[in-house]
Amino acid sequence: MRLYGIDIASRLMLGTAQYPSPDVLAEAFRRSGAGIATVSVRREAGGERAGATFWDLVRDLGVTLLPNTAGCHSAREAVTTAQMARELFDTSWIKLEVIGHADTLQPDPFGLLEAARILVEEGFNVFPYTTEDVVLADRLLSAGCEVLMPWGAPIGTGLGLTNVYGLRTLRAQFPEVPMVVDAGLGLPSQAAMAMEMGFDAVLLNTAVAKAGDPAAMAEGFARAVEAGRLAYQADPMEPRDMAAPSTPVIGKAFLT
Amino acid sequence: MRLYGIDIASRLMLGTAQYPSPDVLAEAFRRSGAGIATVSVRREAGGERAGATFWDLVRDLGVTLLPNTAGCHSAREAVTTAQMARELFDTSWIKLEVIGHADTLQPDPFGLLEAARILVEEGFNVFPYTTEDVVLADRLLSAGCEVLMPWGAPIGTGLGLTNVYGLRTLRAQFPEVPMVVDAGLGLPSQAAMAMEMGFDAVLLNTAVAKAGDPAAMAEGFARAVEAGRLAYQADPMEPRDMAAPSTPVIGKAFLT
Amino acid sequence: MRLYGIDIASRLMLGTAQYPSPDVLAEAFRRSGAGIATVSVRREAGGERAGATFWDLVRDLGVTLLPNTAGCHSAREAVTTAQMARELFDTSWIKLEVIGHADTLQPDPFGLLEAARILVEEGFNVFPYTTEDVVLADRLLSAGCEVLMPWGAPIGTGLGLTNVYGLRTLRAQFPEVPMVVDAGLGLPSQAAMAMEMGFDAVLLNTAVAKAGDPAAMAEGFARAVEAGRLAYQADPMEPRDMAAPSTPVIGKAFLT
Amino acid sequence: MRLYGIDIASRLMLGTAQYPSPDVLAEAFRRSGAGIATVSVRREAGGERAGATFWDLVRDLGVTLLPNTAGCHSAREAVTTAQMARELFDTSWIKLEVIGHADTLQPDPFGLLEAARILVEEGFNVFPYTTEDVVLADRLLSAGCEVLMPWGAPIGTGLGLTNVYGLRTLRAQFPEVPMVVDAGLGLPSQAAMAMEMGFDAVLLNTAVAKAGDPAAMAEGFARAVEAGRLAYQADPMEPRDMAAPSTPVIGKAFLT
Repeated sequence: MRLYGIDIASRLMLGTAQYPSPDVLAEAFRRSGAGIATVSVRREAGGERAGATFWDLVRDLGVTLLPNTAGCHSAREAVTTAQMARELFDTSWIKLEVIGHADTLQPDPFGLLEAARILVEEGFNVFPYTTEDVVLADRLLSAGCEVLMPWGAPIGTGLGLTNVYGLRTLRAQFPEVPMVVDAGLGLPSQAAMAMEMGFDAVLLNTAVAKAGDPAAMAEGFARAVEAGRLAYQADPMEPRDMAAPSTPVIGKAFLT
Repeated sequence: MRLYGIDIASRLMLGTAQYPSPDVLAEAFRRSGAGIATVSVRREAGGERAGATFWDLVRDLGVTLLPNTAGCHSAREAVTTAQMARELFDTSWIKLEVIGHADTLQPDPFGLLEAARILVEEGFNVFPYTTEDVVLADRLLSAGCEVLMPWGAPIGTGLGLTNVYGLRTLRAQFPEVPMVVDAGLGLPSQAAMAMEMGFDAVLLNTAVAKAGDPAAMAEGFARAVEAGRLAYQADPMEPRDMAAPSTPVIGKAFLT
Repeated sequence: MRLYGIDIASRLMLGTAQYPSPDVLAEAFRRSGAGIATVSVRREAGGERAGATFWDLVRDLGVTLLPNTAGCHSAREAVTTAQMARELFDTSWIKLEVIGHADTLQPDPFGLLEAARILVEEGFNVFPYTTEDVVLADRLLSAGCEVLMPWGAPIGTGLGLTNVYGLRTLRAQFPEVPMVVDAGLGLPSQAAMAMEMGFDAVLLNTAVAKAGDPAAMAEGFARAVEAGRLAYQADPMEPRDMAAPSTPVIGKAFLT
Repeated sequence: MRLYGIDIASRLMLGTAQYPSPDVLAEAFRRSGAGIATVSVRREAGGERAGATFWDLVRDLGVTLLPNTAGCHSAREAVTTAQMARELFDTSWIKLEVIGHADTLQPDPFGLLEAARILVEEGFNVFPYTTEDVVLADRLLSAGCEVLMPWGAPIGTGLGLTNVYGLRTLRAQFPEVPMVVDAGLGLPSQAAMAMEMGFDAVLLNTAVAKAGDPAAMAEGFARAVEAGRLAYQADPMEPRDMAAPSTPVIGKAFLT
């Protein structure tokens, strides 16, 4: 998988928040084989949990870092946060979140597009966290985004793919664009399903960090992503309504 | 996983019918790591495709063989076929199919129970292919079956789990009994889901044999089964309706 | 709709248990226009709520009575209860329930078939409460049942149609047999869906009796049953994946 | 139901396109009891099917007319069309469609908001055809729209409610705003479900016009809308996982 000119080995991306301990975080990454870690700029820049310890931890993961603008509620906030991310993490990659709604943390289509335009202009490689809206997707691509990150369900809900029809439509509409299902997944089967539908990768955090055994769950998601990708490439059978014997019976006569 | 006193390493079981070639069958088994192969007694016993070649092939897979009574439509037929299987394959294991309906290949609850009673009596280790019916399940267990194989969907349809509620109920009702979801799966995500629901294994054939690339699909299902099992054991998060930020924001002030 | 030679005007059948008061029960029946009321023989025959009052109430509804064997857990119990029903209500109609599982109140396929055979033999018109099992359905029909009453979901759950695929299969398999979806419905939309699928009627109790306003809910279900029946007969459009403008645009030029 | 100060008796709104004949259209309206008819301005303004005949027909329906801007792909087009509608139909009501995507006819969130702002400014009562996007909904309300018309599925597909979770969220977020599920419905049960979810009305066209018997289907949808509304107001039971006997058994002893 190639994102903004960089080859990424794993199709699983993992967030770095909410783990019970730094050791568990590190172990979850190790077992997941994730190739990309998202990190919150805001947590890095200030606040009680921030600081050298976390920063060292994340750096030691040995994965590509994708800073995000989590917690930003306007284009202006997001742009400022992205600029800070570029300095802090020395990367032009930015996962762009502009939240428009407190209860669902739904992306704000207007602020998102505005911020994406500004950031592309400033040379960023933008990974927009978006909805399944095909018109918004089209605008983001026109603005210079080369990757889309549609949500599966609201952040942290674990509901899986709440709008399968919408996601299928989005996937079909832009077959050449790398797309990552981001947020809302709760179980590996849901990640496998996203991959079977032709999405290029999945990004998650809560389902791993809040599992009873985060490292085992991380490995579970990694296996599911591989499973779904293999199936997508292997040309699955068409489902049918009526049964067909998997074991055709030939020699009935021998029983009489 | 322990079935009738035998430890089985893999939780994926694979059928041996419908592959495009013997080589593809062997490669699919290799990549799947399946621990159990089902084989049709009737095909072995007669008919054009039967014979030494297929028999050698299956033996060379190096897996535990589970002969089945596919194609039997009465208890009498199934019992006779099981007896033949014991001689042919030198095993007391038998996957018991008694088909009661031509279009769906639905198990016949009456014939199934009758045949199970007879075969247990004769010392067989019976793996009954059954529906999600909890009363039937209870009778099969009382008859001496130690494993249940409820269907996901009719054989060969690839529809996945058509009655999730019924399967959940069955699983919850007999928590100690090994259960294998058998038939109807079309995609790895469905296998992962069955495992996440607490089933002990899955058995499939058509979804692998009829995929464009059977060996890759076999590996996909193997990864999905591992994914689902890991998730089941890792204590998943509870889904919730409202969003929760995976990245809590602490230091908002730094932006002002 | 003709059931055992009797024309029934309404396709909604209503139970008589659990209402907050006799007046509410009577009002619910009035607004529902239900043509058939089920009554529990056991409640009639004994117990604190039984007696002349309830009996008079039900008689005054002016609907056809269908006594049931609710609460019976064996063929013997059910047969005895049915015989009592014939005396009490002076009818050969009996809704046959033989419960096989405490948590789901699932019908016991074995006891149900046994009791159905005995009762048909004794001249009853049997309405078996059954699952979506097509083999069991076939046996019940062979035993002389002329109507089937498959469950939508376990009694009292309000879950709707938990196995749509199974119900569709059952409906398709016996196109000439009157079938009533019985139990598990919680909302009118679910009743409409059952009717759209080609079922001939629905029977419910809890969803009406336990609603905040049972009489309004009864009317809601009545409207839904009419809606679904009208749709079934009106030859619905085929769903399609892609949008088609409902308002074709012809004269675009006028805007330029 | 009160929309922009006008009391509307029926909660079913019907489109006027695609009927096999004017007589069938009139009969469908009669049997549906619909209180509002949508009409395409563009068809009225030009093109082969337009003209005095259709205009007279629609006027004779005796219902409130809601002209739409179907077929408009930009805010400018939609505004011009709305202005024309005001003259033609002598009403300030306008169903605002700004299509942003050819295959799904998805509303364009940007053009829609822009057009809504202009039209409200000009004194129109705007009924925006929108998605389930809560941020867009919030902007449309801020722009002065007093009603929202979220889609159920893409126009003309008959798929029903493709994003139940999203629609529930939208409904919950703005409890005081009249909302009409508009487009994509194929069967009455889907309309009933929308009403049970608390939507105030539904608008459809293709499912009626393209049914084998449009008038019967129109009546079916009318009954379903009533059913769903009654249920919504009647305080439905809570679904539960386990069965509960609707007929509690009291006097078991009498059978022994």
